[in-house]
Amino acid sequence: MTYRLEDLAHQVDARLVGDADCSIDSLSVLQDAVPGSISFLSNSKYRKYLKTTKASAVILEQKFLDECPTNALVSDNPYLLFAKVAQLIAPLSEKQAGQHASAIVAPSAQIDVSASIGPGVVIEDNVIIGAEVDIGAGCTIGKGCQIEDGSRLVANVTLCHHVTIGRRVLIHPGAVIGSDGFGLANDNGVWIKVPQLGSVCIGNDVEIGANTTIDRGAIKDTIIGDGVKLDNQIQIAHNVEVGAHTAIAACVGVAGSTKIGKQCTLAGGVGIVGHLEIADNVHFSAQTLVTRSFSEPGYFSGNLPAVPNRVWRKTIARIRHLEALTQRVRQLEKQSQSETNDKPDQNT
Amino acid sequence: MTYRLEDLAHQVDARLVGDADCSIDSLSVLQDAVPGSISFLSNSKYRKYLKTTKASAVILEQKFLDECPTNALVSDNPYLLFAKVAQLIAPLSEKQAGQHASAIVAPSAQIDVSASIGPGVVIEDNVIIGAEVDIGAGCTIGKGCQIEDGSRLVANVTLCHHVTIGRRVLIHPGAVIGSDGFGLANDNGVWIKVPQLGSVCIGNDVEIGANTTIDRGAIKDTIIGDGVKLDNQIQIAHNVEVGAHTAIAACVGVAGSTKIGKQCTLAGGVGIVGHLEIADNVHFSAQTLVTRSFSEPGYFSGNLPAVPNRVWRKTIARIRHLEALTQRVRQLEKQSQSETNDKPDQNT
Amino acid sequence: MTYRLEDLAHQVDARLVGDADCSIDSLSVLQDAVPGSISFLSNSKYRKYLKTTKASAVILEQKFLDECPTNALVSDNPYLLFAKVAQLIAPLSEKQAGQHASAIVAPSAQIDVSASIGPGVVIEDNVIIGAEVDIGAGCTIGKGCQIEDGSRLVANVTLCHHVTIGRRVLIHPGAVIGSDGFGLANDNGVWIKVPQLGSVCIGNDVEIGANTTIDRGAIKDTIIGDGVKLDNQIQIAHNVEVGAHTAIAACVGVAGSTKIGKQCTLAGGVGIVGHLEIADNVHFSAQTLVTRSFSEPGYFSGNLPAVPNRVWRKTIARIRHLEALTQRVRQLEKQSQSETNDKPDQNT
Repeated sequence: MTYRLEDLAHQVDARLVGDADCSIDSLSVLQDAVPGSISFLSNSKYRKYLKTTKASAVILEQKFLDECPTNALVSDNPYLLFAKVAQLIAPLSEKQAGQHASAIVAPSAQIDVSASIGPGVVIEDNVIIGAEVDIGAGCTIGKGCQIEDGSRLVANVTLCHHVTIGRRVLIHPGAVIGSDGFGLANDNGVWIKVPQLGSVCIGNDVEIGANTTIDRGAIKDTIIGDGVKLDNQIQIAHNVEVGAHTAIAACVGVAGSTKIGKQCTLAGGVGIVGHLEIADNVHFSAQTLVTRSFSEPGYFSGNLPAVPNRVWRKTIARIRHLEALTQRVRQLEKQSQSETNDKPDQNT
Repeated sequence: MTYRLEDLAHQVDARLVGDADCSIDSLSVLQDAVPGSISFLSNSKYRKYLKTTKASAVILEQKFLDECPTNALVSDNPYLLFAKVAQLIAPLSEKQAGQHASAIVAPSAQIDVSASIGPGVVIEDNVIIGAEVDIGAGCTIGKGCQIEDGSRLVANVTLCHHVTIGRRVLIHPGAVIGSDGFGLANDNGVWIKVPQLGSVCIGNDVEIGANTTIDRGAIKDTIIGDGVKLDNQIQIAHNVEVGAHTAIAACVGVAGSTKIGKQCTLAGGVGIVGHLEIADNVHFSAQTLVTRSFSEPGYFSGNLPAVPNRVWRKTIARIRHLEALTQRVRQLEKQSQSETNDKPDQNT
Repeated sequence: MTYRLEDLAHQVDARLVGDADCSIDSLSVLQDAVPGSISFLSNSKYRKYLKTTKASAVILEQKFLDECPTNALVSDNPYLLFAKVAQLIAPLSEKQAGQHASAIVAPSAQIDVSASIGPGVVIEDNVIIGAEVDIGAGCTIGKGCQIEDGSRLVANVTLCHHVTIGRRVLIHPGAVIGSDGFGLANDNGVWIKVPQLGSVCIGNDVEIGANTTIDRGAIKDTIIGDGVKLDNQIQIAHNVEVGAHTAIAACVGVAGSTKIGKQCTLAGGVGIVGHLEIADNVHFSAQTLVTRSFSEPGYFSGNLPAVPNRVWRKTIARIRHLEALTQRVRQLEKQSQSETNDKPDQNT
C-alpha cells in the first residue's frame, strides 16, 4: 500500500517533520534504504547509518532529529511506531473462506463458514472452529479442540485432543500443543507412565513459534495467558502457567508445574526447573538457569560469556581450586592475627 | 470409570485407611479437589494443601496420615500408586482398527488387521506394522520400517527409512526418527557429507516426546534401550546408545557415539559431548555440560543458578580475575614465609 | 556396490598398501568389521581396535600403518577419504520423477519434469521447482517459493512463503524455513507484532537438520551461505547471516540480526545473542554463551563441565563469596604493606 507521509503520521499518531506529501510505499533498514521507503532507528548500534540513509522518511526519537537527512516521524518509541506503520504498509493477505477438497473434516466438527481450512488438514471429532479462523496446509486438529475467532495456524501445526485456543492466536509451523506431559513414577528402576489427563488452554492474542511444544497438564491444564509471545523451539512442560504479556525467546525450557508471572521476559536458552513461582516483571538473561522461585521483580543472570579457550582453561582450573584458595587465605589471616598478637609492643 | 475405594485399593495393592465404600470417579490435585476425586501427596511443597483438601481420598505416605482430613491410600511411593490409580480411572480410548480412506499405503507394506492407520498417513514400501499399532493422522513411515505390536505414533511423526520400533512404544507429534547423522569431513574448508548408512533401533516400552529427534547411525545403528523415556525437544545424535530405563528430560542434546548407561537420569537442558561413556545410574542436573566419561554412578552438576544481574556482573569480573587473585595470595604467602624466616627468635 | 580395492583407491586418489584385488562391498567400524568391509581410523580413541579388526581394508594415516593387520588406504585425512569411499559404495537411491497422485499442486506452480513430488505434498501458488528436485512425503511449500536443481526435502519439511533454496540443498524432516521472526514492540506492557516482511535465502550445497527452524527476516532476508551445514534443532532468528561453509551442531540458537562469518564452527548448545558480528574462522565450544562480537579468528569457550554435585555445591558457595574473598586478600595486603612500613630496620 502507498501512503502520503502525513496520512501515515496521522494514522499512527506520530509527529511529522518534513514533507507532508512525500509518498511511502515500502519499508527498509537505514543502510539499504531506497527512495519511497520508510525506515527507523531504535537500536543505537545502527545510528551510524542514519546520516547517509536513502530512505524517504525515518522513524526516530527527538534527540536524533538533527542527524536525520530526510523526513521524520518522531516518537518516544520508534520501534512500536514502526510496527504500526508496517502493519499499514504491508497488510496480511486474506485467506479465502471454505474447506479445501483434500481436507479431512469429521462430520461432528462445527466449523464457521468464514473459516479457511487448507489442503491436507485433518480435523477430528467434535472440534469447534470460530469465525475467520485460518488453518493452513497439513495441520492436525485433535478431537474436542476449540479454536476461537480470528486465530491462524500457519501450516503443519499439531493440536492434540481437547486443546483450547483463544482469539487472534497465531501458531507457526511445527508447533505441537497438548502432547503428553513427562509424568513418570519409578517402580524399582522401571518407569511407569502417569496418565496426562489435563489439557492446554491458550489465551487471546498469543503467538507460538515454529517447533515450540506445550504439554498438556497431568490433572489441571497448562495455561498460557493473554498476549503471551513464545518464540521458536520453546518447551513448556505440563501444568506450567505463563502470565499475561510475558515474552519468551527461542530455545527456552520451562519444567513442570512452574508458574511464571505477567510481563516477564525470558531471553534465549533460559532453563527453569519445576515447581517454582516467578513473580510478575521478572527478567532472565540468555542461557540463565533458574533453580529457585523469585518473588520480586528484577533482572537476573547466571551464565558465563565466551572468552578465549586458553584463558578459559586456566579459569576453570582456578575455579576448581577455589576451596583451596579460600583455605590459603584463611591460613594467612590466622598467621596475620597471630603475628599481631605476638607483638605486645604494638599496642604499648 | 467409577470405583469403590476398597476395590481401587485392592487393585493397586494399597492399604486403605477410611471408608471402604467411598466412591471415586476422578483425579485431582490437593488444592483444587472436589468430592468424588482422589488426590496424592508426593512432593512436600504441596503438603500445605493437605489439611484443607476436598478430595474424597488422598494417596500419601504413612508419616502424613495424621494430617489427612479424609480417606487415605497409604504407600511408600505415592506417586507410583497415583500412576496406577490414574491408569484405572482414566483408561486410554481404543482406536478402531483399519485404514482411513485417505491413508497412502504402499502395496508391499504388511499391516496387521488390528492396526489403526489414520487420515493422511503415508506408509512406504516394505513397511511391517504389528498388531494393535496405532498410527495417528499425518505420520510418515519410510520404506523398510518395522513397528511392533501395541505401539502408538500420536500424529505427524516422521520415521525415515528402515527404522525399527519395539513393542508398546509411544511417540508424540513432531518427533523425527532416523534423520541423517551430522557426519561431515572437511576438505580444505569445504564440508563433505559422510553417508549415514546405519539406522535407529528403538526398544520396547519406550516413550519419545514431541519434536524430539533421533539420528540414524553412520555405520552401526543408534540404539534406544527398553523402557527409555525421552521428553520433548531432545536431540540424540548418530551412533548414540541409551541404556534401558534411562529417563531424559526436555531440551537435552547428546552428541555422536556417546554411550549412556542404564537407569540414568538427565535433567532438562543437559548437553553431552561425543564419544563418551556414561556408566549406569549416573544423574546430571539441569543444563549441566558433560565433557568427559563418567565410569561410576553418582550425581553430577556444573551450572550456575540465577542471581541478580548486578551481583552477577561483579561475580563475572571476580572470576575473570581469579588468576590474578591466586597470584596475589601466593605473593602474600611468600612474604609471610620470608617474614617467618626473618624472625630467628621465633623458634628459639 | 562392490569394488576391487585398487579401483576404489584409484577413484578416491588414495595410496593402496596391500592386496589390489581385494573385494570391498560394505563399510564397517573397526571393532565390528566383517571380511569384505572397509573401515577407517580417524579418532585416536578407536586405535585400540585396529590390531584385531576383521575389516578387509582400513583407511588410516601413514603413522598407524605398522599396526594395521590388513590392507590399507593411506591418507592424511582418513575421515574425508572414508566419506568419499562411502559415497561410492553406498550411493543414494534415485527417486522416480513425477508427482504422486495425492500431491496437491497449485496450477500456477512451475515444476520441472525431472522433479519427484511425493505423497501428500502441498505446493502453493507460483512455486518454482528445478530439475531433479525431490520433495518427500508431507512437505508443504508455501506460495512463491523457489527450489533450485538437485535439492531434496526428505519429508514433512515446511517452507513458508517466498523462501528461496539453492542447488543440491538437503533438508531433513520437521525443518521449518521462513516462519515469522520474533519481532515485537512493547506498547505499555502489551506486545505489538512487527510484521516480518523479509524472507529466507538458502545458498547451494546447504544441509539443514531435522526440526531446525530458520525465521524470515523482518525487512531484509535471513541468509544461509553456500555449503553451510546445520544439524538438528537449531534456531536461526530473523535477519541472521551465516557465512559460507560454517558448520553448526545441534541445539544452537542464534538471535536476531547476528552475522556469523565463513568457516566457523559452533558446537552443540551454543547460544549467540543478537546484533553481533562474528568473524570468519571463529570456533565456539559446546554450550558457550556468546554475548559480544568477535572480530578475530580463534577458539572460544565459557562453560563449566560437570563435577560431583557435592563438590559443585561447595564451588558455587565459593563463587558466591568471591567478592568477599577478594576483599579479604586486599585486607591482608594492606596489613602486610603496613607491617613492612612499620619495620624501619628492614631496609637499613
